[in-house]
Amino acid sequence: MAKLEHIGIAVKSLKDAITLYETILCTDCYKVEAVESEKVMTAFLKAGDTKVELLESADETGVIAKYIETRGEGLHHIAFEVEDIYAEMARLKKEGFTLLMDQPKQGADNKLICFVHPKSAGGVLLELCQEIK
Amino acid sequence: MAKLEHIGIAVKSLKDAITLYETILCTDCYKVEAVESEKVMTAFLKAGDTKVELLESADETGVIAKYIETRGEGLHHIAFEVEDIYAEMARLKKEGFTLLMDQPKQGADNKLICFVHPKSAGGVLLELCQEIK
Repeated sequence: MAKLEHIGIAVKSLKDAITLYETILCTDCYKVEAVESEKVMTAFLKAGDTKVELLESADETGVIAKYIETRGEGLHHIAFEVEDIYAEMARLKKEGFTLLMDQPKQGADNKLICFVHPKSAGGVLLELCQEIK
Repeated sequence: MAKLEHIGIAVKSLKDAITLYETILCTDCYKVEAVESEKVMTAFLKAGDTKVELLESADETGVIAKYIETRGEGLHHIAFEVEDIYAEMARLKKEGFTLLMDQPKQGADNKLICFVHPKSAGGVLLELCQEIK
């Protein structure tokens, strides 16, 4: 599980955050996409071989809204690309990590995703993601 | 400023975190280094084209110790590689970002570094880093 696919950043306003990160990275946002299962709007910017994913909550009950309420805006998760998400979920489970779902689900940017609980990963919310082919 | 050079993760125990991230990433830590100016011990693991930097405070007065005290272990900063750190610092300052230092300083892994205040970057502590040649 070597490649960092993206960094997820929780933001209050996607519009403001896109402008901010376009200025920081000197590159344009190339995709805005709703992920209804997670109640988020996402926006992507390239950063070399990886991506920055900005996440705005679709409503006040979403996980991003709750995250911002308790921790403020900022770094939310890091995602690693895997070849076989089922195999990787089984490996991490066997190693003692707590997965936040039993089956992968559809995420943004044409991916199957699964989250690993931060309590089992040194306080970091980890995402595994596999490109849907 | 396109390339994500590394992700910094604040940890209580470098030893435990190295074991944890070696398991997650299926790769060995390739460097452990003290950064005295920041009062931290760092450890690096490769993750594709980028790196994971684990940060343990050298004592209880260090910035990482204070960070963990208030926010717990977890994602601490993201670092972008720049060609000319002086030019990039001048550009971001002109764009209204608040830099945490007037001059770059020596960081881990043979880099000149400068931090951007999270208040001016959507809650994210940003690091600029330039390889020392």
